[in-house]
Amino acid sequence: MFRSHTCGELKINHVNTQVTLCGLLQRSRNLGGMTFIDLRDRYGITQLVFNMDVNAQLCEQARTLGREFVLKVTGTVAERSNKNAKMPTGDIEINVTAVEVLNESLTPPFTIEENTDGGDELRMKYRYLDLRRPSVRANLELRHKVAAETRTYLNSQNFLEVETPVLIKSTPEGARDFVVPSRMNQGQFYALPQSPQTFKQLLMVANFDKYYQIVKCFRDEDLRADRQPEFTQIDCEMSFVEQEDILKMFEGLVRHLFKNVKGIEIPELSRMTYADAMKFYGNDKPDIRFEMKITELKNMDSESGEEQLWKGAGDAFKVFEDAQYIAGICARGCASYTRKQTDELTDWVKRPQIGATGLIFIKHNSDGTATSSINKFFNEDELKKICTHFKSVPGDLILILAGEKNKMQKALSELRLEIGERLGLRDRSKFSAHWVIDFPLLEWNDDVKRWHAMHHPFTSPKIEDIDLLKTNPGQVRANAYDMVINGVEIGGGSIRIHNKELQQTMFEVLGFTSEKAQEQFGFLMNAFQYGAPPHGGIAFGFDRLCALFGGADTIRDFIAFPKNNSGRDMMIDAPSAIDDEQLKELNIYTRK
Amino acid sequence: MFRSHTCGELKINHVNTQVTLCGLLQRSRNLGGMTFIDLRDRYGITQLVFNMDVNAQLCEQARTLGREFVLKVTGTVAERSNKNAKMPTGDIEINVTAVEVLNESLTPPFTIEENTDGGDELRMKYRYLDLRRPSVRANLELRHKVAAETRTYLNSQNFLEVETPVLIKSTPEGARDFVVPSRMNQGQFYALPQSPQTFKQLLMVANFDKYYQIVKCFRDEDLRADRQPEFTQIDCEMSFVEQEDILKMFEGLVRHLFKNVKGIEIPELSRMTYADAMKFYGNDKPDIRFEMKITELKNMDSESGEEQLWKGAGDAFKVFEDAQYIAGICARGCASYTRKQTDELTDWVKRPQIGATGLIFIKHNSDGTATSSINKFFNEDELKKICTHFKSVPGDLILILAGEKNKMQKALSELRLEIGERLGLRDRSKFSAHWVIDFPLLEWNDDVKRWHAMHHPFTSPKIEDIDLLKTNPGQVRANAYDMVINGVEIGGGSIRIHNKELQQTMFEVLGFTSEKAQEQFGFLMNAFQYGAPPHGGIAFGFDRLCALFGGADTIRDFIAFPKNNSGRDMMIDAPSAIDDEQLKELNIYTRK
Repeated sequence: MFRSHTCGELKINHVNTQVTLCGLLQRSRNLGGMTFIDLRDRYGITQLVFNMDVNAQLCEQARTLGREFVLKVTGTVAERSNKNAKMPTGDIEINVTAVEVLNESLTPPFTIEENTDGGDELRMKYRYLDLRRPSVRANLELRHKVAAETRTYLNSQNFLEVETPVLIKSTPEGARDFVVPSRMNQGQFYALPQSPQTFKQLLMVANFDKYYQIVKCFRDEDLRADRQPEFTQIDCEMSFVEQEDILKMFEGLVRHLFKNVKGIEIPELSRMTYADAMKFYGNDKPDIRFEMKITELKNMDSESGEEQLWKGAGDAFKVFEDAQYIAGICARGCASYTRKQTDELTDWVKRPQIGATGLIFIKHNSDGTATSSINKFFNEDELKKICTHFKSVPGDLILILAGEKNKMQKALSELRLEIGERLGLRDRSKFSAHWVIDFPLLEWNDDVKRWHAMHHPFTSPKIEDIDLLKTNPGQVRANAYDMVINGVEIGGGSIRIHNKELQQTMFEVLGFTSEKAQEQFGFLMNAFQYGAPPHGGIAFGFDRLCALFGGADTIRDFIAFPKNNSGRDMMIDAPSAIDDEQLKELNIYTRK
Repeated sequence: MFRSHTCGELKINHVNTQVTLCGLLQRSRNLGGMTFIDLRDRYGITQLVFNMDVNAQLCEQARTLGREFVLKVTGTVAERSNKNAKMPTGDIEINVTAVEVLNESLTPPFTIEENTDGGDELRMKYRYLDLRRPSVRANLELRHKVAAETRTYLNSQNFLEVETPVLIKSTPEGARDFVVPSRMNQGQFYALPQSPQTFKQLLMVANFDKYYQIVKCFRDEDLRADRQPEFTQIDCEMSFVEQEDILKMFEGLVRHLFKNVKGIEIPELSRMTYADAMKFYGNDKPDIRFEMKITELKNMDSESGEEQLWKGAGDAFKVFEDAQYIAGICARGCASYTRKQTDELTDWVKRPQIGATGLIFIKHNSDGTATSSINKFFNEDELKKICTHFKSVPGDLILILAGEKNKMQKALSELRLEIGERLGLRDRSKFSAHWVIDFPLLEWNDDVKRWHAMHHPFTSPKIEDIDLLKTNPGQVRANAYDMVINGVEIGGGSIRIHNKELQQTMFEVLGFTSEKAQEQFGFLMNAFQYGAPPHGGIAFGFDRLCALFGGADTIRDFIAFPKNNSGRDMMIDAPSAIDDEQLKELNIYTRK
């Protein structure tokens, strides 16, 4: 037994107790007659006292100990004269009688402090030191808690956690697979799963009724910021359910997590159709912590084929005349923006990531008047009509974009988030969770001139839309849903196809030959012939969920050993070359 | 909502309730006026009744439904006239008023029954049907329970579950790695972990104090019976601990599991040294559900260099004269074995898997006399002396092997287990758990003429044996331990080296050049320079543990989707060929 207590637990009631603690030296202060050392372990920090008058030799020894030295100390708990209310152990200190150095330490390449002086690259290389920083450890402790509470809830709902295989079969549909050459079956490869999708469906065919797994998944993608080649999902599937049953069950899960991890009671989740999400927020994962909906002025792409929502002298304005789509948002209280500020916003929307050609402003001034950056095309009456259409009040600033619909919706979505951020409406400690439903089943891929599954090829169309599959595939809605929290897609799923014929039709629509469908998914379609129950499910991005709960934007600090944007583990230096002998055994060759 | 209840929950108090159930048709009996259907879901079976007199059309419809059809039925719960006490729902049945066929089924290729008519290969191919069998599902439910209780215990002990990466770096030490070609870093490879060993040690360097993970591991081995290329470990590590702390903590874990999964209170675990395990049981994972220890007659390999434990006229017996090692076991009550039985046992030990050249019998007859298969070399007095040495009683049969020590120990171990099995001493519902400790640190590998780490290269030698490392490596004992239950190694671990210099010495002893050591484990040795705490851990074979709790010998039925002995998933047909395009992107080639 190395220690009697941890560095986080000693309180005033331990005074006079003899204790043995182990930990790392956080910092050391030599005050002449006294030396103080802060000893740190996972559980906290305890102050150690060495007194020249009491034991000069020990005190001298203490002064030789450097940062991050591993110590075992014995001493007596004493009340501090000078208490520190900010520290859980701030009422006490240890009068040390013996110190053993369990291990020494070089000076770490960066400070093990909340605000470290280490850059990203250095902290990735010495990840084991970065993980010592209390904030990074707290992220991993949060992750542990989220996983534990996820299991508590799902176990209580009769879900079975079942491990599905990691060495599976490559399927070209979807993202790129990582592959694993087989030595025992040369020329053949396993693939690492992008998700356990087919296996969880097979577990439903197996009559397992309710399945979940917190599981690693893999995608060999060119890594955008904050993507990892290996990531973790909470993967779930249920039988004999309709969409409503799944929404209820997993609304229950996130409410349980908010309550038990964050101590927050969130209200029931609202629901929004995909169509409304696009119309009012310009994207399918709206952040509804704040209102600021998109208001359309013109939408040539509407149901009626042409819709001029607002008519005025602006018809003379060529930009409006030509636009497929004109819409904007109303920024509350921003009428006072200066010319410099509006110019800067214009530059912001013109950046290639946003892609607008310009930004039109209408100021609903606090005196009730309206002025605009396009004054020459509109008289004040006309501007006021626009203000009424936007439901602005004096003091508001209306921001309008015009152009190609899809592009402008995306731009308005980004602009809305940016203005929300600037107005402080996106508070990371506030949470707003909701469902987006009624996604389209298919989306057209213009590169390869064929329909792609928006979710995946196993998603069920809505029964009432099935007839459209062969006539107007783009109009078919799916029984698919996403859970969105604070503008982040946290989870998504669907009711699946459980019928061989419909699955075959779906593969046809997606342009699979029946041979290709059979080769890749034959086992699933065969399984459907043996009494597959109706089923559906959902998968949550676990890394993202943890980051959200931790109030962070990036997932990297919620993963113990993340990879960098080139897919490289900087700490262990992987991937790396392997022995020729290994390659020979696998019968594979690389071209130098 | 598809159903109001499951097929496992309706009782007598539900009588007259209108219910809707969903499930698969287990069997159907047409009794003329009545038709009975057993409807099965994950939770149980409920009897459905269709009556020609009440609704002829519905009854006719019911008669068209085949095995494994997926049904949704509505009806009223009624008390059975003819109750079935063996079924949880045996008090009631459902008078059905409506049936909807949710999906049809082809006739399954084997029966979905406890004793199925399907062979191994067929059941692997249609694994989703095999998983429908209640006994197979029960295995996976047990697995879920063992995992859940493992987490409950470790969470209560302040362990943090931390996910370590799956895409890591290949290390030639140990078994063969599966590798994953990197597309973004061409010519380089990731490896799949054989265990998270180095990462859990780095988590200790990171001051995480207590870590665990239930984690998939991978080994590209030629598969012996009951090995899987991917398998699951309960992986644990602790800081500031001595061996004793770890033994106590994980003794706590298995006792918790036995109590909460099996409802069995097992006693505290006894401990046995590796030396005693080899001497008395001939292997390092003895089954101590029964005694039947090995008794040595001669051991030339003992400490004293030569030991003749028993001397008699048998010296004239050339086999004994030449043998390095003579030892045997005493089979209680087997003196009545016939010539046929002893001949069969002799053939058994001569099989190549056992490898003995013969088997010597001494019968301690029930009349007190002793007779032997080698009567001509021993008089009765001498035989009786042997009986005394073996502590046999009248009615016992002594079985003796002679030859090369290691080989004969292995053979005696097998013989002991075989006799134990024949005598019914290896009851699968009885459990005996114990620790084997004080393993040797190193073992000599005669093929490559160098020392290998018996556990792994991070295992700490016993402090008192460190000086022997350079003089007599074979004598160095490790702070290593295995947990053995019913003769199966369920878990193993060690106190680790936490000091850079000792780790370097260890790599030297193992024949690593310092360049090779730096290249492969540099990150770990570097980490040790920054204040690594003393630490140690253990890993349990989770699949094996589940099989043991399930009273089975093979792990395969405790894995949802296992691979066969060629590492092939028969259901999805993996591994398989992949597109040339994929290989090209990876810049790897296979030789046809």
